[in-house]
Amino acid sequence: MDQQYSSVLLENAVNEFAKLPGIGRKTALRLVLHLLRQEESEAEKFGNTIIKLCREIKHCHVCHNISDTDTCAICSDPSRDASTLCVVENVKEVMVVENTRQFHGLYHVLGGVISPMDGIGPADLEIESLVERVAAGGIKEVILALSATMEGDTTNFYIFRKLAPFDVKITIIARGVSVGGELEYTDEITLGRSILNRTLFSESFKG
Amino acid sequence: MDQQYSSVLLENAVNEFAKLPGIGRKTALRLVLHLLRQEESEAEKFGNTIIKLCREIKHCHVCHNISDTDTCAICSDPSRDASTLCVVENVKEVMVVENTRQFHGLYHVLGGVISPMDGIGPADLEIESLVERVAAGGIKEVILALSATMEGDTTNFYIFRKLAPFDVKITIIARGVSVGGELEYTDEITLGRSILNRTLFSESFKG
Repeated sequence: MDQQYSSVLLENAVNEFAKLPGIGRKTALRLVLHLLRQEESEAEKFGNTIIKLCREIKHCHVCHNISDTDTCAICSDPSRDASTLCVVENVKEVMVVENTRQFHGLYHVLGGVISPMDGIGPADLEIESLVERVAAGGIKEVILALSATMEGDTTNFYIFRKLAPFDVKITIIARGVSVGGELEYTDEITLGRSILNRTLFSESFKG
Repeated sequence: MDQQYSSVLLENAVNEFAKLPGIGRKTALRLVLHLLRQEESEAEKFGNTIIKLCREIKHCHVCHNISDTDTCAICSDPSRDASTLCVVENVKEVMVVENTRQFHGLYHVLGGVISPMDGIGPADLEIESLVERVAAGGIKEVILALSATMEGDTTNFYIFRKLAPFDVKITIIARGVSVGGELEYTDEITLGRSILNRTLFSESFKG
């Protein structure tokens, strides 16, 4: 629906909000009217915070995670295990893995996965820099934590081949039944994988 | 959950988005990461549009609708019927009524309804200015189009008494069964009102 508002200023603001993912024109209008009801200084703070973020944010030159500094807080934390690397697709996945509190090593953010359909090849990702990090030595294990999709698998295999010449253990996160998931509703491929990759019951309490 | 991100810039932006109605921290993070994936100029445009809106938006000095100019586009449109006023709660309701394309008069935006529970009295609303508009003459009908709530009814009655001394027809929008609504699921009070306020069948095709 090409709804027009009586105000061009309002129209522009609604258009900007409606560009965001999952925000339609109705929601956009609601958000803009909410901002209009706030103090002018509140709305300025909102706008300026976003401008400041996009101007000043950096990417860590080691792991490529977003950061306020040249080297991110994780890479510069001496208490973390620098011999273990977790390879993830994007910034979001670093947060997701951090929230599990099960990983204490460092990250490597690829910036996506290999996807010929979207025109994304290995050269578009931070794979070369991953190989360089491993080649520099000191890394004992690389954990592949990409999505369990065809693109993720392709990327896993590509990285596996690239790292094969080095003396490094390459592992992949477990695929199986979700915790809390009922067997009846688990798809057959996942269930099959969970049987193949079964673990010792006594080991399953760890972590 | 008091989730902390590795970047203060990111944290601030997420906090700002999470202040918006219906946007939680997870959605806020998704929106911020989306903006980060755009060109820097896109994010600046987003921020600046909002700042510009809140700095430059005006309220029409006649009807109190939001406007880019001192008198809004509706009030300054000579093709509209200046003898009919539609009284609404807020800016949003002007848009809703406009979208019906059934009203061709002018508006009067109260800025809310009388609500003692929220500390909103008649003096906090644009009721005095409504009385002045009617007192100035030239207005034949005032349509009350407030919400069908207790607060809306209180406000309707207050305005009705304030306008009683003037030679003006005061009407209220019809309450009844929704178009497309099934009788079985209509509440009894609404159904009762729809029977009391029944209209001539031959009149029901109008508009």
